[in-house]
Amino acid sequence: MAVRLAESGAKVTLGSREAERAIGVAGEVRARWGELALDILGSDNVGAAGADVVILATPWDSAIATLKPLREVLAGKVVISMANALIKEGREMLPLIPPRGSVAAAVQAALPDSLVAAAFHHLPAGEMENLESGLEADVLVCSDHPEASVVTESLIEVMRGLRPLNAGTLSQASAIEAFTAVCITLNIRYRAHSTLRMIGI
Amino acid sequence: MAVRLAESGAKVTLGSREAERAIGVAGEVRARWGELALDILGSDNVGAAGADVVILATPWDSAIATLKPLREVLAGKVVISMANALIKEGREMLPLIPPRGSVAAAVQAALPDSLVAAAFHHLPAGEMENLESGLEADVLVCSDHPEASVVTESLIEVMRGLRPLNAGTLSQASAIEAFTAVCITLNIRYRAHSTLRMIGI
Repeated sequence: MAVRLAESGAKVTLGSREAERAIGVAGEVRARWGELALDILGSDNVGAAGADVVILATPWDSAIATLKPLREVLAGKVVISMANALIKEGREMLPLIPPRGSVAAAVQAALPDSLVAAAFHHLPAGEMENLESGLEADVLVCSDHPEASVVTESLIEVMRGLRPLNAGTLSQASAIEAFTAVCITLNIRYRAHSTLRMIGI
Repeated sequence: MAVRLAESGAKVTLGSREAERAIGVAGEVRARWGELALDILGSDNVGAAGADVVILATPWDSAIATLKPLREVLAGKVVISMANALIKEGREMLPLIPPRGSVAAAVQAALPDSLVAAAFHHLPAGEMENLESGLEADVLVCSDHPEASVVTESLIEVMRGLRPLNAGTLSQASAIEAFTAVCITLNIRYRAHSTLRMIGI
């Protein structure tokens, strides 16, 4: 996410509980794509939460614990949830149903003063971090705040290889998140790095 | 479904509680595509259930009531569930979670002696019934019986415009069915007849 966002012209701050760790990763990413002079820095979570738009990219079961202390600094901001609650069973990933139906709905409940959107669920990580992968994927966006959808779509619009599609309200997040299990299961079965396209739109 | 199946060379029997109704619809479909001489007949449900492979294409809330009386005639057969439990709310479709997680799981529970597969959830009906529509769509198939997946995939393989993808066990049906709500919501928002493609497989 950081690589493709920064390549599109965004100034990116990686957050971590330990600032040192985020600073180290940011340095590695800058070095890998040195010729692009990507604007990626590292910080603790409070520093990262100071950005105009905040993307929650923790594992799903750390999402709420990570966000709760940041409620005030995130008030009024667009927060994008990309987590999926999944569990592995044999050669398949299966979706779990979080107490509010989706991770994104739980994030919105934990951050009632923020404008939560859900997006970026179905993207293969390996293709995302390789800018030369030729990735072409649709990104489904949903939110209860039209402004958050617009901001999220505008970020995606300029990211290489991605097309935003507005899928409606946060009620859609449960199905969007759960479908990630199907995408990963297909990738396991077909040894692929597949991406989702909605043909005809 | 009947048109594309028959066009691929299958002999199709439409079922209905009232045989007259199925016979009438079969006649209309044959007449529309007269030059193809499609092999589509009508029958009551018991007659339709006599086929080698049975596709359950009722609304989701009629699925179990339709199947229960057919348990014995369907024993040992591949039964394909294509229903999605959805509800309209404003300009969106939302997924409901059936008591067993998916319609397909409920169908398998109602027909313990049948080999239930789930497939055909995300296809736009208007494009399906028009053989000249240029439809190109992936069809996700899942089942707890590998034989049922193989049979279902082999049907899809020869249907014009469709590609089968094996998505694993019936545990995947909940996410596959629910994602239909996202597809329809996108179609409403974008006034489209979109189809799903998994690029990279």
